[in-house]
Formats: sequence, C-alpha cells, structure tokens
Amino acid sequence: MIFVTRKMHFSASHRLFNPKYTDEENDAVFDKCNNPNGHGHNYYLEVCVAGEPNPETGYVIDLKILKRIVKVNFIDFVDHKNLNLDVPFLRGVIPTAENIAIAAWDQIEPHVTDGRLFSVTLYETENNFVEYKGNR
Amino acid sequence: MIFVTRKMHFSASHRLFNPKYTDEENDAVFDKCNNPNGHGHNYYLEVCVAGEPNPETGYVIDLKILKRIVKVNFIDFVDHKNLNLDVPFLRGVIPTAENIAIAAWDQIEPHVTDGRLFSVTLYETENNFVEYKGNR
Amino acid sequence: MIFVTRKMHFSASHRLFNPKYTDEENDAVFDKCNNPNGHGHNYYLEVCVAGEPNPETGYVIDLKILKRIVKVNFIDFVDHKNLNLDVPFLRGVIPTAENIAIAAWDQIEPHVTDGRLFSVTLYETENNFVEYKGNR
Amino acid sequence: MIFVTRKMHFSASHRLFNPKYTDEENDAVFDKCNNPNGHGHNYYLEVCVAGEPNPETGYVIDLKILKRIVKVNFIDFVDHKNLNLDVPFLRGVIPTAENIAIAAWDQIEPHVTDGRLFSVTLYETENNFVEYKGNR
Amino acid sequence: MIFVTRKMHFSASHRLFNPKYTDEENDAVFDKCNNPNGHGHNYYLEVCVAGEPNPETGYVIDLKILKRIVKVNFIDFVDHKNLNLDVPFLRGVIPTAENIAIAAWDQIEPHVTDGRLFSVTLYETENNFVEYKGNR
Amino acid sequence: MIFVTRKMHFSASHRLFNPKYTDEENDAVFDKCNNPNGHGHNYYLEVCVAGEPNPETGYVIDLKILKRIVKVNFIDFVDHKNLNLDVPFLRGVIPTAENIAIAAWDQIEPHVTDGRLFSVTLYETENNFVEYKGNR
Repeated sequence: MIFVTRKMHFSASHRLFNPKYTDEENDAVFDKCNNPNGHGHNYYLEVCVAGEPNPETGYVIDLKILKRIVKVNFIDFVDHKNLNLDVPFLRGVIPTAENIAIAAWDQIEPHVTDGRLFSVTLYETENNFVEYKGNR
Repeated sequence: MIFVTRKMHFSASHRLFNPKYTDEENDAVFDKCNNPNGHGHNYYLEVCVAGEPNPETGYVIDLKILKRIVKVNFIDFVDHKNLNLDVPFLRGVIPTAENIAIAAWDQIEPHVTDGRLFSVTLYETENNFVEYKGNR
Repeated sequence: MIFVTRKMHFSASHRLFNPKYTDEENDAVFDKCNNPNGHGHNYYLEVCVAGEPNPETGYVIDLKILKRIVKVNFIDFVDHKNLNLDVPFLRGVIPTAENIAIAAWDQIEPHVTDGRLFSVTLYETENNFVEYKGNR
Repeated sequence: MIFVTRKMHFSASHRLFNPKYTDEENDAVFDKCNNPNGHGHNYYLEVCVAGEPNPETGYVIDLKILKRIVKVNFIDFVDHKNLNLDVPFLRGVIPTAENIAIAAWDQIEPHVTDGRLFSVTLYETENNFVEYKGNR
Repeated sequence: MIFVTRKMHFSASHRLFNPKYTDEENDAVFDKCNNPNGHGHNYYLEVCVAGEPNPETGYVIDLKILKRIVKVNFIDFVDHKNLNLDVPFLRGVIPTAENIAIAAWDQIEPHVTDGRLFSVTLYETENNFVEYKGNR
Repeated sequence: MIFVTRKMHFSASHRLFNPKYTDEENDAVFDKCNNPNGHGHNYYLEVCVAGEPNPETGYVIDLKILKRIVKVNFIDFVDHKNLNLDVPFLRGVIPTAENIAIAAWDQIEPHVTDGRLFSVTLYETENNFVEYKGNR
C-alpha cells in the first residue's frame, strides 16, 4: 500500500462563536477569534489517498484527477469565501479547523474512485493544524 | 551599514472593492476578492531597519524593541481583524497588499529610534508580496 | 477522532557525549556534536493531541490552552538554555533529539486534560527529526 | 519506540509513459509528464527508522550513518540522473513517485542495522508526495 | 514606488555543457550537471514589478494579469520541458540559472504594461538562486 | 549584471554579553540571550556574488566553487562551534547576527575571484535576519 498526497490551498475568512453562548462566554472561549467582523487565513489542505499502484500507470491515483476532485467538491466552495456565511455544507457549523477538516472529508470521500481516502490534514496557520481519518 | 529584519505575523480578513464602482466594475477588477462577505489571509510582515551596529551591544536595533514597536503600532490593530471595518488607519482605503504595506510603514516609521526604517515587505500569500521603502 | 497539532519553537545549545566514554570514544561516536564548548539549534516541537471535537466549541482542545501547557511545562525550561547544564529534567541525560522528545512527552502528557497526548515531534534541523508516541 | 527521520535531496529528470501504450494513450494518461524529451524535479526523500534509543548513545540510529546508507545505496544512483535511462534498479519501471519510493525502500531497507526502516516519503514537488511503509 | 512580486513554478530538465568543449572540459566545468541524459529541477520564478499603486484599484499591477503575462510568455514554454531541446528562446543557450533568468526577463518585459519590470529571481534549488534586473 | 546566491547552513551556540557591563546591565540589554551557559541556533547564510555570466559557461561564478570558498573560509570555523570561545576571527566580538555577518563578509570577500561579493545575509531564526553589503 502506498499513501499519495496532494496539497492544495484556499483563502477564507471566518468567525468562531457559538450562537447559544452569551457575548461574554464567546469572548471567554474564542477570544480574538470571536471578532464580530471576522478574520481570515491562508489554509492548506493535504488530501491523502491509500492504495496499490496500478501496474499500467504506476499511479495509485492520478494526482491531476485527485486535484480536480478536491477542487470541484471542496476548494471551489471555500476559496475566497466567508466560512460562516457562504458555504452550504458549513451552515450551522462552528468553522474551527476540526470542523472544516471533517467537512472536507465528507465532501471529498465519496468521489475518490482509485484507492480510498485515508486522511485530510488542514493547516490553519504554519503552527496550527488538524488531521482527520474519517473514523467517526 | 547593516540591514536588520524582523518578520512578524497576523491573520486578517478583507474585501477588495471600490465603492465608486458599480457591482459589475468591482467584479471585473477584483474578481473573487470582491466577495461581499470577505475572505482572509495569514499575512507576514518583514520590517527592515538600516543602521550601524552599536559597538557596545553589537545591535543595529534590539530586535525585542523592534518587535514591540511593530506589535504596538501595527500588529495589534490588524491581527484577527477585518481590514475594511476594524482598523482606524485603513478607513477609506482599499486594503490591497500595496495599501496595507504603505499603512504599515506610516504606522511604524516614526517610532524607530535606532537606525532608520528601510523597508516593509508584506506577504499576502506565499506567492504574492509587496515591498515599500517609503519613497513617496 | 481528530488529531490537533500545535508547533512551537525554542533555541538551545547542547553537547553530545557520554561521560563513561573516553575522549576518543566520544569523538568516534558523536563527532562534531562532541565539541566541548557546545553548539546549538533552533528546535521546533510539534505537539499532537487526539480526541473528539467538543460539540459546544468545535475544539478537540483549545490551542491557546495547549500552547500554554507546552510553554509552562517545557518551553520555558529549555528556551535560550544549555540542555546539558540548565534543565532539571534533562540532568544526566544525553540530549539527543530522541531523549529531548521523550522528556517533552513526560513533561507535557500529565497536563493535557482535553483529549490525550498522541505524539511529540522534535525537529533539530530541517533535515533531522524524531517522533515519540509514549509507547515505552 | 522512537521514529527517527533523515531528509535528503536529489535532482533528476524523468518521462512518464508506458511503452505498451500508443502515443494517444500516453498523452491521455500522462499528459505533460509524457513530454518525450523529459522534464525534472528537485526530489526530497524522508527516510524514517523506528527503534529504541541505545542507552549508551541516546541514538536510535546515528543519523550520520543513516545519511551514508541512503547516499550510497540510493542518492548516488539517482542524483543528477535521468530516471528512465541511468538507474539500474529503475530499468523497466515507470518512474512515478510511487515507484521511485518503492525502489528507495528496496535499496535502503537491507542496510539499516540499528532499528528497522519504517517508511520512506518522497516529495516530487511541494504539493505532491507519496509514503511507502514496505507492506507489499 | 511599490515593488510587487508574483512567484510562479515550473518543472524542467536540462543538461549543462558547451558544445565547443571536449568531453573532458565539460566534465571538469559542469561535473554532475553534464550528465548526457540530463537531470531536472522544480524551478521557482519571482517576477517583480515596480510602480505606483493606481488610486482607483490600490494595485500597482493586478497580480492576476501579471500571472497571465508570465504564464503565456514564459511558463508555458518551459514547464514540463527539456530546456536544451524544447524551448525556442533557449536554443543555443547553455541553460544555467543565469541564462534562464535573462531569457525570462526578455520574454516578460515587453508585456508589462502597468509599472515596469524590476527584477526576475530564479530559484534552481532551495540553495541556489539568481536575480536579474535587466541592466545589460 | 546578475546576482548569484548560494545558501549554506551551520549550527552554533553563543552567549550575548558585554564584558564591560555589570550582570544587571547585561541582563537588561541581552535578556535571555545572556544565559551564562549559552544557547544556540541553526544559522543560514546566503552569499550573493554579482557579475557578468561568462559566455563560455553561462556562470557568473560556479556555485560549486563558491560553496567551497564559503565552506573553507567560514563554515568550517563556525559549524558545531561555540561562537564566543571557538572561533579565532570572532575573538573579542559580541556574536550578534550583525557582527557574525560582518565577519562572514571579511572571511569570504578576498577569496571571490569571479564577480565580486555583493552581500551576505545571515538568518539567526526564521524571523530574525541581517544583511551586510560591505559598505563600511
């Protein structure tokens, strides 16, 4: 088994808050990330597919095809968007890195036909990142 | 003369549009960056000071002091903020990388007491960056 | 389960040698790293916590809290220090990347209250790094 | 158990095509990578060894030794080479990242005497990489 | 004046040799880079334009437009190509980083209509790069 | 004119203090960097040479030769060393980044025979760096 990864990029804004919390609770929990007018990030998403190389091509999955799957089903929905307001599959979700990674998995996983989706890793900054392997 | 640089980070959201333009004109010029709900970036700012090393300390400027000057006069105003709505010194300014760099210069330059501010370089993404040397 | 990682930095000096070895043996094994006056590195430590996102916050662990745990229990002891002489929990330990990573785990693990510590990865240089998952 | 990684570099050219395919099939599958005169990459190879630190040295494996093993058995064969024409152990193999990683494993694995080879990760570009753990 | 930079990428192969040299001379001068079957790199090109920000847009030059200029006039000619054999404007040129940078300048400069081309910087590897400012 | 740069690496330890200062003054000025047992860094040095490409080779200076000049005259003296105690040309110098860069210039400049040394840039960390162009 080989693990093949494609890294992609998007820029987005978000605000972290729980509408069931008071303003004080949101400030206490989310601090600067609760700025009402939002802030933003250059996100990087690493999408990893596991499988056997096809002996005809030497590919587990053609990365051009994986790139297109990720673009059409995820990046096009979030790039240059406000993650609280603009993204159908994040409606009602607090857009933490954890929840964005789960959403990325759910958007991408059904479309991977060669090999199977093994993990998605989302970098919110150089110093903060999360990995999800679909094991809910 | 030695050029001493401190690199710092902030995360912010913005929307690029000219209020004098029609919606169609804003879309034509600013494209995805004109999303009404905004998007965002992890910005990196490199602040470069030129001067002679002090023979007593070996420093052109103590980078702890430079870091504090940049934090108090610029980073604290823009980090985890919406650059269109939250920043007094960007009011009425289209927050392109060019204009943010000019604003950073204007905010930081008067406070540099050892050496003189030589340049500010602002990275909006890994692939897009601007440099300003104050020569207006 | 989600894996959440915070990357942090410290600068430190060290010398690699075994006091039970002769000078010749230390030179043969540790080579340049056995310089008696020491040398140093910019170390990066990635601390990974595994757990379920809290449905109220969307966080496995608030990274501001994780950052503080790592700072107070590890970084403050090693940053701008000599790892052979200044660090209580490294006394008598050869400060290889392997042994520093084990010490980081032992210092941090008891303090992680949301989720559980999954791994620590220590970069000594861009090209050399070690990972430890606590499985002694 | 500790996982110790050494990252190394080589520059090489290659062409992706299957000699059993027609030109049209090769173009359809390999696209730009099928350019008859080839193209190339700066490859990075991360070689990870798993084991217990030796209590005498604090090392799982001396990275100077690991570096030498990787250099002599792999890097010297591929650095500044054409992967289709110049490399005995890639003869008849389509030099995709997947197949190069498998070849790296096979070249390096028998020579690791302290600990055991755990994984090889090959970066073809910053955005495309594959990992192999020997589990054929 | 503001300096605006767009970084772009291409992958290519090349061989360094002077057809007027003997094999021995080529080996002595170009060493590993003289491998007859070639080798390759992931090149990065930073294209810097200098000018005044347009007060209507805040842009010196729209980076989407600069990206297109660089793509159409340079990247499309060299990406996934053999620099010795496939590129009309490199015919008869030894494809060192220096000469590729000069060719990039000559290809791009006439097409920059907002501001003026200030420099091109070409990274052959992380450790080797050249800058050209057109001052022949 | 073309500017050709080679980036190199060394690991070293240092302590910042002025022997003419009291302990209190050294603490006030140099803070954590005044730790008596020292600390350390992974330093990166970029050495830039300016000149015309030789029409026979396409090189301003063969980077293999530049690498050797920098290694023999600078890196070999500082790599895996204590910059306060082990380096003849830093004796009596406070080893700030500024002073190390000046020393690097003085060590390297006389040996550059093709083109002329244009600048040395020393990175102490990712966020702190200095550039020197020899203009004393």
